[in-house]
Amino acid sequence: MKLNLVLAESALELVPSELRNDPSVVSDAKRRGVDASRILLDRSFHHRAMLRLKDGLKRGRPDLVHVALLSITGTPLYSEGGVKVYVHTYTNEVLELLEKTRIPKSYFRFRGLVEQALTERPRNGLLRVSESSFERLVKDVGSDSVIGLSTQGRKTSMDELSAMIGAARKPCVAIGGFAQGHFSPKSLEAMDELVRIHDKSLEAHVVAARVLYEVEKHST
Amino acid sequence: MKLNLVLAESALELVPSELRNDPSVVSDAKRRGVDASRILLDRSFHHRAMLRLKDGLKRGRPDLVHVALLSITGTPLYSEGGVKVYVHTYTNEVLELLEKTRIPKSYFRFRGLVEQALTERPRNGLLRVSESSFERLVKDVGSDSVIGLSTQGRKTSMDELSAMIGAARKPCVAIGGFAQGHFSPKSLEAMDELVRIHDKSLEAHVVAARVLYEVEKHST
Repeated sequence: MKLNLVLAESALELVPSELRNDPSVVSDAKRRGVDASRILLDRSFHHRAMLRLKDGLKRGRPDLVHVALLSITGTPLYSEGGVKVYVHTYTNEVLELLEKTRIPKSYFRFRGLVEQALTERPRNGLLRVSESSFERLVKDVGSDSVIGLSTQGRKTSMDELSAMIGAARKPCVAIGGFAQGHFSPKSLEAMDELVRIHDKSLEAHVVAARVLYEVEKHST
Repeated sequence: MKLNLVLAESALELVPSELRNDPSVVSDAKRRGVDASRILLDRSFHHRAMLRLKDGLKRGRPDLVHVALLSITGTPLYSEGGVKVYVHTYTNEVLELLEKTRIPKSYFRFRGLVEQALTERPRNGLLRVSESSFERLVKDVGSDSVIGLSTQGRKTSMDELSAMIGAARKPCVAIGGFAQGHFSPKSLEAMDELVRIHDKSLEAHVVAARVLYEVEKHST
């Protein structure tokens, strides 16, 4: 059994065209010596510009995606090839981690890797980039059981979740790759189950670490 | 029961004086507009300079410490006050996280916070900095059971480890805050137990996530 893990609607994208002339973006691009069209949208630097962005609170958190990917790729399950990882983004791009890709722990290197991948396409040895909605992605993956994790879901114990995953032929688990908000209605429609594993909202990296640890325990 | 968690001998320090004139350090400091004495040693930028540093492979990984702290502070156990966190460094400084301190997920903000704490001392509202060896720290904490996690330790199941932690009055768990190498002999001497929880070497953030998750499960 190989688990498909999707960070869904992730807050990872290049600065959208309508913000490229904003002072905070211009000065960031200048400081880095890169064109504004080639840098990641990042709330830490572009907060002011993002105030006028649609769904601004759900976007521009590459740091969060980075930490979530580290928590996934640091697990024995991942290094043994037991997890296939996709980062689906708010703007409907998909970054597929190629077999056993190691994500740089340095944020600077991670940022460079993702900026290159999103700018140059379609793949750079570590990541393969394509355009796809979440619905399309899970269809392409061919999963027979798409399980979304959300505070809006049905309360489920970790044992029960592991059993659900273990019972599927080709399970797919979706974790929100954003800091605020919920899955979109369209993404929700593509899920077979929506469960929550804790009373409180947990960060994506914490959820990923726990799910993979449980799957690992149940698969040995 | 409150768990004391120490990231021990962590690869976190300001650029040591003997490297401050190295070209890689000078250019990094210049680019950032900060004096070289006030920036964190970071292998991503100072790799060349670090080649001639004693124990260079064990030092200069603030990125690793950052991710480990996120994996700790993102847990419900931490936000409910069930974990006290100390970062003991290679150079025998201790950063104590004050009650429920939230660590910035942005690496830039984290770096700024730590650089300020290490430069300006003794505390900045989130961190309290002091000088102490690991041995001294665990003595000050007053722990009756200091458990080190290391691939050099005795193989132990997570259930057994949780039971050991649960049996102590004031447990202290030490995880190496470095990417390569092992605990120093002096640190080892200060530990009551040395255990390993996996056949392979796991990154600090993965170890921390798993230990806290198990403690959390056993404490509810």
